[in-house]
Amino acid sequence: MIKKEINDIKVIPLGGAGEVGKNLYVINIDEEIFIVDAGLKFPESEMYGIDKVIPDITYLVENKEKIKAVFISHGHEDHIGALAYILKKINVPIYATRLTIGLIKDILSDEGFNLKSINLKTINPDAKIKFENTAVSFFRTTHNIPDSIGISFQTSMGSIVYTGDFKFDYSPVDSIGPDINKMSYIGNQGVLCLISDSTNAEKPGYTPSESIVGVALNNEFFKANGRLIVATFSSNIHRIQQVINAAATNNRKVVFVGHCMQRAVSISKELGYLKIPKNTLIQMSEVDKYNDKQLVFLTTGNQGEPLSAVSKIAKQVHKGIVAKSGDTLIIASTPVPGDEIVVYKSINLLMRLGVNVIYNEKQIHVSGHGSQEELKLMIQLMKPKYFIPVHGDLKMQIAHAKLAENIGIERDRVFLVDNGDVVHFTKESVNNVKKVQAGNVLIDGLGIGDIGNIVLRDRRLLAHDGILVVVITLNKVTKKVVSGPEIISRGFIYVRESEKLIEQSTEIINRLVNKSTSEGNFEWSFLKSNIRDSLNEFLYEKTKRKPMILPIIMEV
Amino acid sequence: MIKKEINDIKVIPLGGAGEVGKNLYVINIDEEIFIVDAGLKFPESEMYGIDKVIPDITYLVENKEKIKAVFISHGHEDHIGALAYILKKINVPIYATRLTIGLIKDILSDEGFNLKSINLKTINPDAKIKFENTAVSFFRTTHNIPDSIGISFQTSMGSIVYTGDFKFDYSPVDSIGPDINKMSYIGNQGVLCLISDSTNAEKPGYTPSESIVGVALNNEFFKANGRLIVATFSSNIHRIQQVINAAATNNRKVVFVGHCMQRAVSISKELGYLKIPKNTLIQMSEVDKYNDKQLVFLTTGNQGEPLSAVSKIAKQVHKGIVAKSGDTLIIASTPVPGDEIVVYKSINLLMRLGVNVIYNEKQIHVSGHGSQEELKLMIQLMKPKYFIPVHGDLKMQIAHAKLAENIGIERDRVFLVDNGDVVHFTKESVNNVKKVQAGNVLIDGLGIGDIGNIVLRDRRLLAHDGILVVVITLNKVTKKVVSGPEIISRGFIYVRESEKLIEQSTEIINRLVNKSTSEGNFEWSFLKSNIRDSLNEFLYEKTKRKPMILPIIMEV
Repeated sequence: MIKKEINDIKVIPLGGAGEVGKNLYVINIDEEIFIVDAGLKFPESEMYGIDKVIPDITYLVENKEKIKAVFISHGHEDHIGALAYILKKINVPIYATRLTIGLIKDILSDEGFNLKSINLKTINPDAKIKFENTAVSFFRTTHNIPDSIGISFQTSMGSIVYTGDFKFDYSPVDSIGPDINKMSYIGNQGVLCLISDSTNAEKPGYTPSESIVGVALNNEFFKANGRLIVATFSSNIHRIQQVINAAATNNRKVVFVGHCMQRAVSISKELGYLKIPKNTLIQMSEVDKYNDKQLVFLTTGNQGEPLSAVSKIAKQVHKGIVAKSGDTLIIASTPVPGDEIVVYKSINLLMRLGVNVIYNEKQIHVSGHGSQEELKLMIQLMKPKYFIPVHGDLKMQIAHAKLAENIGIERDRVFLVDNGDVVHFTKESVNNVKKVQAGNVLIDGLGIGDIGNIVLRDRRLLAHDGILVVVITLNKVTKKVVSGPEIISRGFIYVRESEKLIEQSTEIINRLVNKSTSEGNFEWSFLKSNIRDSLNEFLYEKTKRKPMILPIIMEV
Repeated sequence: MIKKEINDIKVIPLGGAGEVGKNLYVINIDEEIFIVDAGLKFPESEMYGIDKVIPDITYLVENKEKIKAVFISHGHEDHIGALAYILKKINVPIYATRLTIGLIKDILSDEGFNLKSINLKTINPDAKIKFENTAVSFFRTTHNIPDSIGISFQTSMGSIVYTGDFKFDYSPVDSIGPDINKMSYIGNQGVLCLISDSTNAEKPGYTPSESIVGVALNNEFFKANGRLIVATFSSNIHRIQQVINAAATNNRKVVFVGHCMQRAVSISKELGYLKIPKNTLIQMSEVDKYNDKQLVFLTTGNQGEPLSAVSKIAKQVHKGIVAKSGDTLIIASTPVPGDEIVVYKSINLLMRLGVNVIYNEKQIHVSGHGSQEELKLMIQLMKPKYFIPVHGDLKMQIAHAKLAENIGIERDRVFLVDNGDVVHFTKESVNNVKKVQAGNVLIDGLGIGDIGNIVLRDRRLLAHDGILVVVITLNKVTKKVVSGPEIISRGFIYVRESEKLIEQSTEIINRLVNKSTSEGNFEWSFLKSNIRDSLNEFLYEKTKRKPMILPIIMEV
């Protein structure tokens, strides 16, 4: 109990509050700032062309002298995927468990970092790391990736505890269960505020153990008469282990397919988190030596996401796997909302190829996040004075808040926070009134944050009704048309079948140009906006469509 | 038993096979053609800008002299929404039950038809309609719209039975249950082929009765302390009835909001399918006379789809309803796959406004389609010799086929059909080898079928990385640049922040033009494709984005 007496703690989510993804929470203890997790999120459907979304870290950059450390709870992209972007702007030590460090190294070297220049500190969950105002300790949790931890910042005002992603899996695949005793110990020491995972706060009951997937996989492996293809998350090391086990039990050889899967496997294997029995693993080049009943292909897609692999296999454009009649394909994941359409389309295509597709089987995919009873258990163990549900959108946060209320945490001690909110604790008061800058930074190709609302709005307009470009060349002196109007459209109509429409549009433009010339009004912006408005109206009347209209005036 | 001896029946789905939506089945009995249902489908997410999708009816147009009648099973859009487009090309009588005829009249007048010119025939489900080769009879089914029927074409070779959409609801809201005795009678007469609804073929067990929704609504109405807003399908007359009943029980007045809802209510009320107790209905203008606890707003969105209304209310752009803290909003529908994201976003926005949102409550929305046990019951009642699962994608069809197999219909008597397939029955043989033209006709604004793959592909490209337009004006004689290159982009980058990129692109273009001029190569298409390729490469290298590049060369 060495801690300095303090009287100022701020909890500031910069990502992960009011949303699922890009988790980044800031714990500000007196003059020391700690970052907890630094994840990315994949774009929503209307973010046309965007590859990734990361948190706006202006607040961190502005306070970078105060930042003491980044703590990472586990190695999933939504918790580590923004690290590279942060490290480009802030040099700070990163603390994480062994597997998590392995995965972080992987993404950092991928982003071109020299790992020697990065201060990566592997922590043992039993460790206690002392700073001026706080001592940071950890507790093992269970999630669908090994080596997941919760993080506790002990202070003179009590602890701030962040759960990370968790479920209470009492029979995890690696037999390393949640450290309930440590949680209880932390709870007994006095928790000022619990920051907890809301993902499944709307789901009643308990989430089943990951180990039931092993049984179900084994059943499917037993029944399959041809080749087996299993698509799952490359980050779900437990599930990969269970596929390997089922393969070994059923005398099948495993082929790891695809870059992401091979990388995840090689890191986990090297660090001892994945155990592959001898003579189970083969290379793609050896496949011909075996008959169909002896093979399992284990694959994932881009960014470790299984459904993109399934989609490629279904469209017969997958580089490694050519599906054929008699294959059994197991989709060991559940589509996130919004993805079902694509998945179902893939399943239909696969079935058309004669593939037996196992999907939507509850036993083949279980969530890595605890359901309501588990969330309550966490709150009971921590007995926090204040509660902040995070890692979820508002409806999940509200559901989580209701659970907390049901077990005795009064409504006014629960903070429903949004990104940028500042929950400010002093000995005298607690409030959530201030806000710091927070939001989405969009990554498109090499551009970070250069795509703003205007570009996105244009993409939406273009997607809907296409574009009509109008080019006119005018004589600089006489302002008479010397070439054009030329009308070119893309994504609007098939021009060859719409000659009359284009002719009429040309007439409209000519009339407007002549009017402008005869009136001596050479305000090009005025002429352009006239062309835009008149064509808009005309085309909408004729087609009930609203293409983007882009008038270009050239002078010679 | 008056029927002529025949020896040729063809069942041809033109929509609804291998997909959910745009149901249209053709029954070809000797030289007489019958159309069963004529529906539309809403576009998939990658059909940018498309409003509706209808079946390709080339086959019908080519055979229009043989078409004797259209039979409609019930009044949902996916069964009647393509009628207007068909009637524009084919004049043929339409047979349907009373409510269905009411709804058909509504959409036809909406499309500008003179109803007097259309041969609409209201049928009683007890009727039998005789044609040269067949006698057509009907059987009442239960679905989430009243007056739903199945259709049986009795022939000398046995009957062809089409179930329409159905579940076995023994306690339907209007107390008019499924006519099991008639089904049994038809089955006993001998069914050659059953064509049945596969929507819920993947769902085990039974679908609950629609009447449980009434109980759940009543509970929510009882608990609500402020205004109630219920969003549901305008076509689900039973559910509208139950909202009215719950309102009456809880002493609330009902306001119908929105054009679609008001139309559906007025048609159903006028025809006696909706019973509104006295003093229950009020107008929007009377709302101020009541306190919040006395009000229920019943609304639906565009095309009778509740979620678009919910989304508008959430974004506070709904014309009729301004949500406020204390309101309870009940979403009495389940988002279809692909729509969840939008719905969840709306729920979060509503919760941020302080609205209590009731969603995903299993009791508040039940499906209108029977689950596995009900599908088996239908097969048992009909005892068909052959079976065609329709109204579902391939995975649903396969699930349905497996159910049929499980209860004794051999695999080779089940046809997994796609649109355009011809299942051909003669006394000697049955096969599915021929195919007629079938597919999607896209409707965008006023254009029917004018949007093809090129326009859609362009919209996809534009959506992803935008467009870069390059305009150069050249002297007709010297082929020197006299104006430009002008580079304008939309949806690609924010140009003001990318001056250097534009400068470099300009240099590349100038170089290419000069080269072309100096070489005396005035093949504009060659220059254009050079510009396109070089800019593509350059921009991808610099930004990892691939905007559409549109070079335009003007000559003066």
